[in-house]
Amino acid sequence: MVHNFNAGPSILPKEVFEQASQAILNYNNTGLSILEIGHRTPLFQEVMNEAIALIRELMQLDADHEVLFLHGGASTQFFQVPMNLLDEGESAAYLDCGVWGTKAIKEARLFGNVITVASSKDRNYTYIPRGYAIPSDSKYFHFTTNNTIEGTQMHALPDTRVPLIADMSSDILSRTMDFNRFSLIYAGAQKNIGAAGVNLVIVNKNMLGHVKRKLPSMMDYQLHIANGSMLNTPPVFAVYVCMLTLRWLKQQGGVVAIEKVNNKKAALLYDTLDSLPVFKPTVNKEDRSKMNVVFVMDNPDLEKDFLERSKKEGMVGIRGHRSVGGFRVSLYNALPLRSVEALTEMMKDFALQHA
Amino acid sequence: MVHNFNAGPSILPKEVFEQASQAILNYNNTGLSILEIGHRTPLFQEVMNEAIALIRELMQLDADHEVLFLHGGASTQFFQVPMNLLDEGESAAYLDCGVWGTKAIKEARLFGNVITVASSKDRNYTYIPRGYAIPSDSKYFHFTTNNTIEGTQMHALPDTRVPLIADMSSDILSRTMDFNRFSLIYAGAQKNIGAAGVNLVIVNKNMLGHVKRKLPSMMDYQLHIANGSMLNTPPVFAVYVCMLTLRWLKQQGGVVAIEKVNNKKAALLYDTLDSLPVFKPTVNKEDRSKMNVVFVMDNPDLEKDFLERSKKEGMVGIRGHRSVGGFRVSLYNALPLRSVEALTEMMKDFALQHA
Repeated sequence: MVHNFNAGPSILPKEVFEQASQAILNYNNTGLSILEIGHRTPLFQEVMNEAIALIRELMQLDADHEVLFLHGGASTQFFQVPMNLLDEGESAAYLDCGVWGTKAIKEARLFGNVITVASSKDRNYTYIPRGYAIPSDSKYFHFTTNNTIEGTQMHALPDTRVPLIADMSSDILSRTMDFNRFSLIYAGAQKNIGAAGVNLVIVNKNMLGHVKRKLPSMMDYQLHIANGSMLNTPPVFAVYVCMLTLRWLKQQGGVVAIEKVNNKKAALLYDTLDSLPVFKPTVNKEDRSKMNVVFVMDNPDLEKDFLERSKKEGMVGIRGHRSVGGFRVSLYNALPLRSVEALTEMMKDFALQHA
Repeated sequence: MVHNFNAGPSILPKEVFEQASQAILNYNNTGLSILEIGHRTPLFQEVMNEAIALIRELMQLDADHEVLFLHGGASTQFFQVPMNLLDEGESAAYLDCGVWGTKAIKEARLFGNVITVASSKDRNYTYIPRGYAIPSDSKYFHFTTNNTIEGTQMHALPDTRVPLIADMSSDILSRTMDFNRFSLIYAGAQKNIGAAGVNLVIVNKNMLGHVKRKLPSMMDYQLHIANGSMLNTPPVFAVYVCMLTLRWLKQQGGVVAIEKVNNKKAALLYDTLDSLPVFKPTVNKEDRSKMNVVFVMDNPDLEKDFLERSKKEGMVGIRGHRSVGGFRVSLYNALPLRSVEALTEMMKDFALQHA
């Protein structure tokens, strides 16, 4: 058995793999592959409609919020957000909590004034800053809810009247939240939504249409809304995999139910790490991510042994990001509890051997 | 048996469907789905490397030409091309030969001066203009090699020293051509390259780095080149399907061999249309596309009957684009000759019944 702890692209439900595999051979008994159907046919329009409806339902979105499936990944949103929302001379507030937030700041600077309200760079992004002030005239406040690389997560929303914009790539749909409080949410699909190759954008339509610059059509949220995410040929298969994954999430009981499982998985892993002195979690305790658990070994010489051992036991994707080192274990929605149990059992045994 | 004449997304080889379906369950006996492997693993790096190498080989590209697999579809290239290549105050020449060329012109106007050197709009884009002049100080000359919607195709390259840029979305890899003569080629994958969700860009690197404007990272060809098409998470599965389709094309004997089959398919269909007065091809004879064959019925009242009949015989995707009406039959690389034979037999029978 393989235990897939990849940070993304990452594990998806087994049912999704089975259904997607079948749809490539014969989609819904049409005799056609899902890869060869036209995107303007009812066959695909139904897929897009259901994917959008499931997002609306699972996140309990109100009528002001539009759901888009776009090309380009979250990295495209780093510039598409300010291009659509921030005029030259206007200011936007950004929180600098890790590699992705830093990139978002860099891209936003091409379009307006960027005020970095706080940064945790001083301690290698191992905590979420607190007590910062957000200028009330900021066009919006941008932050990353979960830092995939560094393993931190914001557990409380900022208390401000400035419109909130969040990159939720690595923890969307993993926990309950008042998503209607956000003016814009974006997330690459390849963690909790589906497979790589499509990007979810949720936007409060009242935010749009206010900048003076002319937008390239493919960058214009309003055009994508007017065209139901089909301004051009959408990434058909990637949207289909999203729909299957969202169906699965609904069957599990939705975000409320999966949050309980996610809490259990994270508690089991962090409790194990805290109980074994051989391991050292790197992140401030109250800012620990429930999606990406980052740790090193107390004795770095043991890291190679631990990696070898984990490989032998079918554990995949636990090597830390090259910028952090050590280990990173990702606990996305589709990862079963039994994979965390297998890992923690192995950790205990490893600790015993190296006590 | 289903005959898939879809204009895109469109038919791919049966072997590709089978291999892709299997890879979703268990990729290369890793016990992992192709959808859950990290893009920075050797497992996927090999896929990207092979896809790029196959493009280089099949198109016989020289060392100046870089191959990129990017997000966003050809529609993103409509603005990404001028954003990277055309400074404010500079001019670029465009040929207006159909819906897609018109869109490319609209987007380019956001970045510099656009000179439309010729247009076939006067006759509903049913021909390719000739005898136009391209100003020698144009930064580049942009054209669409094949007009998917209108069914025209450029059968000779323009004779000019101005750098050539082509949207080859619907006829790339279908015919031999000196691809090194182009400064930039782009094509959505969903016709002859693979499945929807990825975009091929081939660029002569000497064209890059000359504009003054600052580019968003995800729009910067030079950054994508430096990062081997992995500046961010690539559309993993879509690239994989490209690699499989390119492998298949190589096995068929490459572009030289497929061109012969494509010529045969197109000749059979056009000869049949020309021999049956009930059908009326809409396009100027010498500009007929070998990829998308557009025709109407001499008696429009018969169109419904013909569509019904074709449906009954398992023909899919022959209804014309809403802007043109009538019928459109797409003959992409993966469409077998026997599908064209089935269609032309049916046409003859239909013509006999309605003589």
